[in-house]
Amino acid sequence: MQDPTDTAPLDVPSLELSIYLAGEIHSDWRDRFRDLLAGRGIEATFLGPQEDHGLSDDIGEKILGTQPGPRYRDLEGARVNTLRTRVHLRYADLVVACFTDTYRQWNTAADAGQAVAAGIPLVLVRAEEHVHALKELDALADLTVETLEQAAEAVAYITRR
Amino acid sequence: MQDPTDTAPLDVPSLELSIYLAGEIHSDWRDRFRDLLAGRGIEATFLGPQEDHGLSDDIGEKILGTQPGPRYRDLEGARVNTLRTRVHLRYADLVVACFTDTYRQWNTAADAGQAVAAGIPLVLVRAEEHVHALKELDALADLTVETLEQAAEAVAYITRR
Amino acid sequence: MQDPTDTAPLDVPSLELSIYLAGEIHSDWRDRFRDLLAGRGIEATFLGPQEDHGLSDDIGEKILGTQPGPRYRDLEGARVNTLRTRVHLRYADLVVACFTDTYRQWNTAADAGQAVAAGIPLVLVRAEEHVHALKELDALADLTVETLEQAAEAVAYITRR
Amino acid sequence: MQDPTDTAPLDVPSLELSIYLAGEIHSDWRDRFRDLLAGRGIEATFLGPQEDHGLSDDIGEKILGTQPGPRYRDLEGARVNTLRTRVHLRYADLVVACFTDTYRQWNTAADAGQAVAAGIPLVLVRAEEHVHALKELDALADLTVETLEQAAEAVAYITRR
Amino acid sequence: MQDPTDTAPLDVPSLELSIYLAGEIHSDWRDRFRDLLAGRGIEATFLGPQEDHGLSDDIGEKILGTQPGPRYRDLEGARVNTLRTRVHLRYADLVVACFTDTYRQWNTAADAGQAVAAGIPLVLVRAEEHVHALKELDALADLTVETLEQAAEAVAYITRR
Amino acid sequence: MQDPTDTAPLDVPSLELSIYLAGEIHSDWRDRFRDLLAGRGIEATFLGPQEDHGLSDDIGEKILGTQPGPRYRDLEGARVNTLRTRVHLRYADLVVACFTDTYRQWNTAADAGQAVAAGIPLVLVRAEEHVHALKELDALADLTVETLEQAAEAVAYITRR
Amino acid sequence: MQDPTDTAPLDVPSLELSIYLAGEIHSDWRDRFRDLLAGRGIEATFLGPQEDHGLSDDIGEKILGTQPGPRYRDLEGARVNTLRTRVHLRYADLVVACFTDTYRQWNTAADAGQAVAAGIPLVLVRAEEHVHALKELDALADLTVETLEQAAEAVAYITRR
Amino acid sequence: MQDPTDTAPLDVPSLELSIYLAGEIHSDWRDRFRDLLAGRGIEATFLGPQEDHGLSDDIGEKILGTQPGPRYRDLEGARVNTLRTRVHLRYADLVVACFTDTYRQWNTAADAGQAVAAGIPLVLVRAEEHVHALKELDALADLTVETLEQAAEAVAYITRR
Repeated sequence: MQDPTDTAPLDVPSLELSIYLAGEIHSDWRDRFRDLLAGRGIEATFLGPQEDHGLSDDIGEKILGTQPGPRYRDLEGARVNTLRTRVHLRYADLVVACFTDTYRQWNTAADAGQAVAAGIPLVLVRAEEHVHALKELDALADLTVETLEQAAEAVAYITRR
Repeated sequence: MQDPTDTAPLDVPSLELSIYLAGEIHSDWRDRFRDLLAGRGIEATFLGPQEDHGLSDDIGEKILGTQPGPRYRDLEGARVNTLRTRVHLRYADLVVACFTDTYRQWNTAADAGQAVAAGIPLVLVRAEEHVHALKELDALADLTVETLEQAAEAVAYITRR
Repeated sequence: MQDPTDTAPLDVPSLELSIYLAGEIHSDWRDRFRDLLAGRGIEATFLGPQEDHGLSDDIGEKILGTQPGPRYRDLEGARVNTLRTRVHLRYADLVVACFTDTYRQWNTAADAGQAVAAGIPLVLVRAEEHVHALKELDALADLTVETLEQAAEAVAYITRR
Repeated sequence: MQDPTDTAPLDVPSLELSIYLAGEIHSDWRDRFRDLLAGRGIEATFLGPQEDHGLSDDIGEKILGTQPGPRYRDLEGARVNTLRTRVHLRYADLVVACFTDTYRQWNTAADAGQAVAAGIPLVLVRAEEHVHALKELDALADLTVETLEQAAEAVAYITRR
Repeated sequence: MQDPTDTAPLDVPSLELSIYLAGEIHSDWRDRFRDLLAGRGIEATFLGPQEDHGLSDDIGEKILGTQPGPRYRDLEGARVNTLRTRVHLRYADLVVACFTDTYRQWNTAADAGQAVAAGIPLVLVRAEEHVHALKELDALADLTVETLEQAAEAVAYITRR
Repeated sequence: MQDPTDTAPLDVPSLELSIYLAGEIHSDWRDRFRDLLAGRGIEATFLGPQEDHGLSDDIGEKILGTQPGPRYRDLEGARVNTLRTRVHLRYADLVVACFTDTYRQWNTAADAGQAVAAGIPLVLVRAEEHVHALKELDALADLTVETLEQAAEAVAYITRR
Repeated sequence: MQDPTDTAPLDVPSLELSIYLAGEIHSDWRDRFRDLLAGRGIEATFLGPQEDHGLSDDIGEKILGTQPGPRYRDLEGARVNTLRTRVHLRYADLVVACFTDTYRQWNTAADAGQAVAAGIPLVLVRAEEHVHALKELDALADLTVETLEQAAEAVAYITRR
Repeated sequence: MQDPTDTAPLDVPSLELSIYLAGEIHSDWRDRFRDLLAGRGIEATFLGPQEDHGLSDDIGEKILGTQPGPRYRDLEGARVNTLRTRVHLRYADLVVACFTDTYRQWNTAADAGQAVAAGIPLVLVRAEEHVHALKELDALADLTVETLEQAAEAVAYITRR
């Protein structure tokens, strides 16, 4: 490539992505990821599930009132949560699906599957211990990394000229 | 979740949705719903059918002149109305379909069906008396509520971090 | 056109369509429509909702057991019914949506809306009394007729060379 | 409905579906499900992942030879497996996703997510103990049941007139 | 290529296409094209508009009864015709759009445009005199030829190994 | 509807559409249509073919140099023109296809067909003399009018609350 | 997994795929691949470009007559070839793209790119020498192998229960 | 066309496209193309692969650390690169694919194939020496030119009224 200072404008523009952050809502991984991008000077719109775990569990009855038993309490809460997910995914340019070291995280896998089938590019984040259990999602993802720092580096690489 | 005041920016951004309001155009439910969102500080673009019922019925002949008899007067009016609906639905991030207590409301059901098939997230609003007659639309919708206040709470939940 | 006996094969082939019959399940209109096609020598695969009304209402609890109250009894039944509808609509080459003279028929309208949005050709059948209330579905449909005989004539026209 | 013996043909046709069976490949749940359908006289084409667990794990190195270390052994095996899954899902009219009582089952969740986003109807099978962890997939599925017998009943309901 | 008699089966299979024949319905070009394919031993399913011109014009009133004036007589006839076209185009693997030397042929152009936008491969047939007027359709088509014999040769080329 | 001055904001927002103007490029109908919208206070982005007829015919050789004969001169010009059309149609919220009283206008019909198949709402403008020849496009369009004033009224109706 | 001889039917059915064979048409790799599948008892429909290289180059002028110079001779031949490719790709369940050791093979890469974007599963075959030059296609493919035998093994794996 | 100074606004707006620049990343053709557009006063957003060739080759190991051997070093680098390509292509209104006089350029052909299948308009740039080898891509592209100046002229033509 020619010296970019010759022909390119001084202020190289960067893409501003809308990134859906799929993963559990118990730990603070989203805050850490947002900080990692901010620390690299990357602006983005962050989408994702409700991050307040208590509110996420209660939202069905909070809106609709007490339901008859735990199954319908859960179903109604989940309907509000999936409404949110479907609206947010329509905006997403990129899904970052992060598996951490505990919880079932079936929503993370389902969101990743939805991204693949909907043609939304997918970055998978998972530690070495999950290599085998997540090998098919590794193959389906566009990129698989082990840490949030690596995911942030990848986002930097794709948004900067 | 960590205390959001630690790491999140002070001014948490919110999604600004384009919401198609499907339902009858005789009562003032759209105004009440817009007020409920405004009262919660939610900005949105509102889409939907022509809300002036007389104009909605007359628009075919108003544009094209007198037609031969009521069937073609109705068909031409409806062609203008469906042109509007199709253009608006292309912009919609969310459809709120509200069934009230009278009128046939077949357009409401048809619009809801279109939203489902087009992959546009759908919130159904219907009172308890219509639970049985609308049970399949309940199952097709992402969320079903009984009041406009509940629908506004759901919109608040999905647009706010 | 030249005399077809000159150049066309003697046995002109006809398309064998899969037709989804949307409409209420209380009257025998589907049987009458199937007879009308059979009487014209038209073979087709017929798709549609469960036609046994009692079974349609009971199917949720029949499969899943008693649910807590009528709303969830209805929702679970409806989930089975919409599963059926979604599977059948994927096979449909044509939807015939028939509005008769009673019942709410919101499912008929929702199915018609789904057909329109999914790009499945749609024939609407409705008597003169419903011209005004169904004028937008008239504009969205490919063809609107008043009787099942007329609908059968239209199917004959499109399946025969 | 009228007495079907009056107007319907004697041999009522039934849909023959292609059903993708998503779930773990350690237990014999697919054999039991196939038996349940066969016992109800339902013919279907069954699709799904490789059911021989050892072969599923080995297939990458079996085709490509030894890879450098477990991560790439897993990735290459997974690429063959996801190739299979993608080909099979293109044929599927219905996905039955079954969660059993052990293993991580992230592939099950990812396959279910793909079915939802690809518009393939989805039946979720999960025991009561997983109601909470799978509540969002419950809301996304067309139907959720607790046992394979219930799933077989649902398939019977949608394939029979 | 190796001598195909060595390794290939003796009876090389050929694709059996469904071909939509777009064009005017006044002359016998479809019969000639069907004969040209038959003469080359090519079997195909032929789709297209109603070829009986009188029936095509009358079909609206034939099904629905007399309409109020020529515009609505034409519109209702056209609704039946476009219902047929939409059903047939869903089956088409290939559209052959033939412009002859007279008539307005706006339907031919509209059908060709629909094929392009729907991703259905398109062969355009037009004589030299129309090169300029049809230059954009020439650019949009996959192939443009001047005679039906050439179109038949192209079909032979794509269906035979 | 309630008095809008009570609850609606004073400045009712209007949709700002991107409108593709399909039709011949010899007369000044686009300027007249743009004036009609401007006169109604409607802002829009106008898309469409190159309106300078000479440039439209010359553009292939202007870019690529002299081609061997009229057919390839036309084809190369048309390739540039259809590149433009395809880029513009991707932006269009609405297609207005206007048939005037002369020229072949096959591009107009092809563009209208593309709009229909691509799901872009379509308004057809044609004088009474073309009712019969354009009856199928009348049936495919969302709305058919006879004058540009009527088309402008329809645009006003769908963009204004 | 249970012993399959207990519960599975004796004659396990296998998927019969339509496989598009993308690659150069100078060597006999397709015959070898077809033999490899036949030797494994796998029946498939084989799709792909014209394998007679001379015919592939001549087909444009063979159908349309002599063109003015090599560029248009090539363009017209290519239009017939791409017509064939587009028709065949619509039938394909799987694309096997094979890069051999000479020729430019840009069509192979373009066909592979089309398969990826159209959602058709893709197996890439390339020798070790091309690892670097084809690394992005390796990442886009569902599976990458080095020999036709390996590709045949993969097809066997995905078509057999 | 009427004198545009009469009715058109003085400042004719132009489309601002997002253009994906597919091609090798060794020479400075992208800088030259950007300069050619800038010299014509055309503003655009430029998308494309990483233009720093060394970084493009190293990015996998730069993010993930040393991989076991060249094949996986290449695959991981390519996964980051294709993640970038997929994100960028979702934004693209137009793809300009430029073949220069050396390198294998299989990525260029694969990107062009993806653009065709994804419905993104495509301009092909290739010198006369590559006419034969690229004849099928010539037929698939919307427009084929020989120089970057010609491509810039085409972009000017489609973005300016």
